[in-house]
Amino acid sequence: MKNEQIPKAVIARLPRYYRCVEDLYRTNCIRVSSATLSNLMGITASQVRQDFSCFGGFGLQGYGYNVHYLRYELRRILGLENKNTAILVGCGTLGQILLKSFDFENFGIFLIAAFDTNPDVIGTQVGFVNIMDLNRLESFAKIEVPDMAILAVSRTGAPETARLIADVGIPSIWSFAGCPLGVEDRILVEQVSFTDSLLQLSYRLKMQRETDSETPSQ
Amino acid sequence: MKNEQIPKAVIARLPRYYRCVEDLYRTNCIRVSSATLSNLMGITASQVRQDFSCFGGFGLQGYGYNVHYLRYELRRILGLENKNTAILVGCGTLGQILLKSFDFENFGIFLIAAFDTNPDVIGTQVGFVNIMDLNRLESFAKIEVPDMAILAVSRTGAPETARLIADVGIPSIWSFAGCPLGVEDRILVEQVSFTDSLLQLSYRLKMQRETDSETPSQ
Repeated sequence: MKNEQIPKAVIARLPRYYRCVEDLYRTNCIRVSSATLSNLMGITASQVRQDFSCFGGFGLQGYGYNVHYLRYELRRILGLENKNTAILVGCGTLGQILLKSFDFENFGIFLIAAFDTNPDVIGTQVGFVNIMDLNRLESFAKIEVPDMAILAVSRTGAPETARLIADVGIPSIWSFAGCPLGVEDRILVEQVSFTDSLLQLSYRLKMQRETDSETPSQ
Repeated sequence: MKNEQIPKAVIARLPRYYRCVEDLYRTNCIRVSSATLSNLMGITASQVRQDFSCFGGFGLQGYGYNVHYLRYELRRILGLENKNTAILVGCGTLGQILLKSFDFENFGIFLIAAFDTNPDVIGTQVGFVNIMDLNRLESFAKIEVPDMAILAVSRTGAPETARLIADVGIPSIWSFAGCPLGVEDRILVEQVSFTDSLLQLSYRLKMQRETDSETPSQ
């Protein structure tokens, strides 16, 4: 199946498939059945097989999938085997945690610089990365042409900073700002949302209570 | 439509609807059309109207939705108007950021205590919350009966801590641990995943490059 014909719902499930397979890989699991994968994913086994058929199948039915191969194929499909360069903008608490602890390379990302406006952090090094003055972003981007900007500034400054990122020609933004950025459609934007999972949990707690209160006690 | 008949895909979209409507509410927007909402959501306007019809419609077609009312209804459906009590387990860097900065009350959550095993933080107060010894969780939970545990421990300790949380009778876990917890199905678990959005962005960058390289240059 050509990439553009793959249903959006399947593409939306790819990150979750990758997480499951990555967990199996890290626990040295060698083969996994579609039944086990479907349990981990919370969908039916036939849905798993149907999803994978979009990419040619990945394995033999009844025999299970080779975890190592499945992981490699999912990484290839997700573009994790491509090498992307990225900068981080906003070196406050969150930005510094990302610089110190996030395993960018596992996602095929090379973090080449970080930027901030605070004179106290400009010129320092966090992790393996130097923090530069945001004023220098334009000249830096002309030479280094980063593929991605990681936006770790506060909500208030986010749209203005995002416009700057777009103006200097960086084609994609991974945003922690938690608000619309208002950049043109040609810029690819993905928002990190901590809270969607909390909202789902709140909904499920409410539903569970309603079900419990409808069930007559014995 | 009764809650249990609402399609899973609609329920999965509720958090994103709420985020869009919350953003409109914060910018003092009074009415919103299904066309505008559909743009913000990245789905069709007819899908928006169809989704809302599951909950009785929320507004008059052609006239748009009242943002204040829509926000209230979405909060009610998501259980944010219920009051849930929560504890936080794991007061490292991430746990402390959550204690200091996360607006739990806006999600209908009252954070009543935090727990850790590190003697350096036990007995201190972060935000408005006292950090207690994890050994005291069982006796605490018997008296206070928290509705939710926020799990901010590292991957390594997460399954063991999650089992403890389940054993003391806390019915739901919002997990930042980024790995399967292995608790029984009766425990509601939602995982925060920073990385799903990064994986989607990686995929979209790859697709954009493939499309660009297929388009003949002029």
